[in-house]
Amino acid sequence: MTYKVILLRHGQSEWNEKNLFTGWVDVDLTDLGRAEALRGGELLVENNILPDVLYTSRLQRAINTANIALGAADRIWIDVKRSWRLNERHYGALQGKDKAQTLAEYGEEQFMLWRRSYDTPPPPLPDDSDFSQAHDPRYADLSADELPRTECLKDVLERFLPYWENEITKDIRAGKTVLIAAHGNSLRALVKHLDGISDADIAAVNIPTGIPLVYELDENLKPVKAGGTYLDPEAAAASIQAVANQGKQKK
Amino acid sequence: MTYKVILLRHGQSEWNEKNLFTGWVDVDLTDLGRAEALRGGELLVENNILPDVLYTSRLQRAINTANIALGAADRIWIDVKRSWRLNERHYGALQGKDKAQTLAEYGEEQFMLWRRSYDTPPPPLPDDSDFSQAHDPRYADLSADELPRTECLKDVLERFLPYWENEITKDIRAGKTVLIAAHGNSLRALVKHLDGISDADIAAVNIPTGIPLVYELDENLKPVKAGGTYLDPEAAAASIQAVANQGKQKK
Repeated sequence: MTYKVILLRHGQSEWNEKNLFTGWVDVDLTDLGRAEALRGGELLVENNILPDVLYTSRLQRAINTANIALGAADRIWIDVKRSWRLNERHYGALQGKDKAQTLAEYGEEQFMLWRRSYDTPPPPLPDDSDFSQAHDPRYADLSADELPRTECLKDVLERFLPYWENEITKDIRAGKTVLIAAHGNSLRALVKHLDGISDADIAAVNIPTGIPLVYELDENLKPVKAGGTYLDPEAAAASIQAVANQGKQKK
Repeated sequence: MTYKVILLRHGQSEWNEKNLFTGWVDVDLTDLGRAEALRGGELLVENNILPDVLYTSRLQRAINTANIALGAADRIWIDVKRSWRLNERHYGALQGKDKAQTLAEYGEEQFMLWRRSYDTPPPPLPDDSDFSQAHDPRYADLSADELPRTECLKDVLERFLPYWENEITKDIRAGKTVLIAAHGNSLRALVKHLDGISDADIAAVNIPTGIPLVYELDENLKPVKAGGTYLDPEAAAASIQAVANQGKQKK
């Protein structure tokens, strides 16, 4: 007996397109992002891997990605559970800033530290910023300690894991095929946990948008195959290579 | 202290447009239906009545209506709960049949009995029908007794009320503004219950599509104002009048 969990990173958002740091700012998908989501749903159908329950963040780019993909898979009717614990990494004072300008302003070393360091968060975002979520009704239930003003990947892992352990794995152990529609960094946190990737090595791991990544898990919820299986392996490899090349060029 | 619940009947579906009996057959919205849903969401914003939690049926025309309306109201992130108990009335052997042909075939008396009688269901739908839900994975959790093969409005009320009492009212009593996105007959069942309408009088009650109907409820969950308040009263009145006229002409 094995279990199945499907990871789906949202497609292109309006701020991906504009090259702005997004984090918890709730921007929508672009037309390209919607097309990616649709393709993601078609891949589920083609591979006959149909989710029984959906988990999403509280951010519309993940929610809409899931809704579009599930619509394409005729599964819009499944149960849905949402949590801020699946949100993207909170990007702190960088939220709303242009990535190229930030790189020019702070230099490459600082820029890469904020982007890829496991445990160094950017400066916190002031509560009076236009890009703050301190007064957002969707997070009204969070305690003062829980609501982040900035996060590094370690922080994401620490707020994601309790939800994984206490909620998501219950559905998985009940035999349900779980779809998690989320974000680059909340999904990297899960992949780090599942594959036992070190704090150093996780920096090089990128998850392509819109391509379902399926993990088959054994009775201890360990991956049967490290790294899981992308439902479109060629597109995933091309996307991962493009991100790697981009990193080299932009250095 | 009063509570708030919003009823939203899905917009035009593909089979509304084709004049077919739909029931539990899972057809999608038309473009007009999507436009109605969008307007429903705008009305929530204009009246500053923003839901905290969404309840839907398992049918995509209600789910998509809710998603479009919540998107328009910037509330796509709220918690979602779905149940077959909010589904449309199961139309039995009439599912998939043309309404005009059915009227011609069975005569007006029988036709109106099936459509508006409180306690006379149409003949049951055979499990081997193309329009049966007997093998639909979304209802796999239902017991043999629970899965309907046909329903009258009384049956709808009997399967809806436990969900209202045990689930929905918990969120209402917790002070949450609840949005119920559902169907003509599951919402008529709720209205009958809330307003204490007799078995005979409910036949004349119609709920317009796409116009949020808000009930303010007292501490005993009784309506402060009988019949609630449509957020676009003129459009609601016009729609109700049009249905009444249609009934007269088609007689």
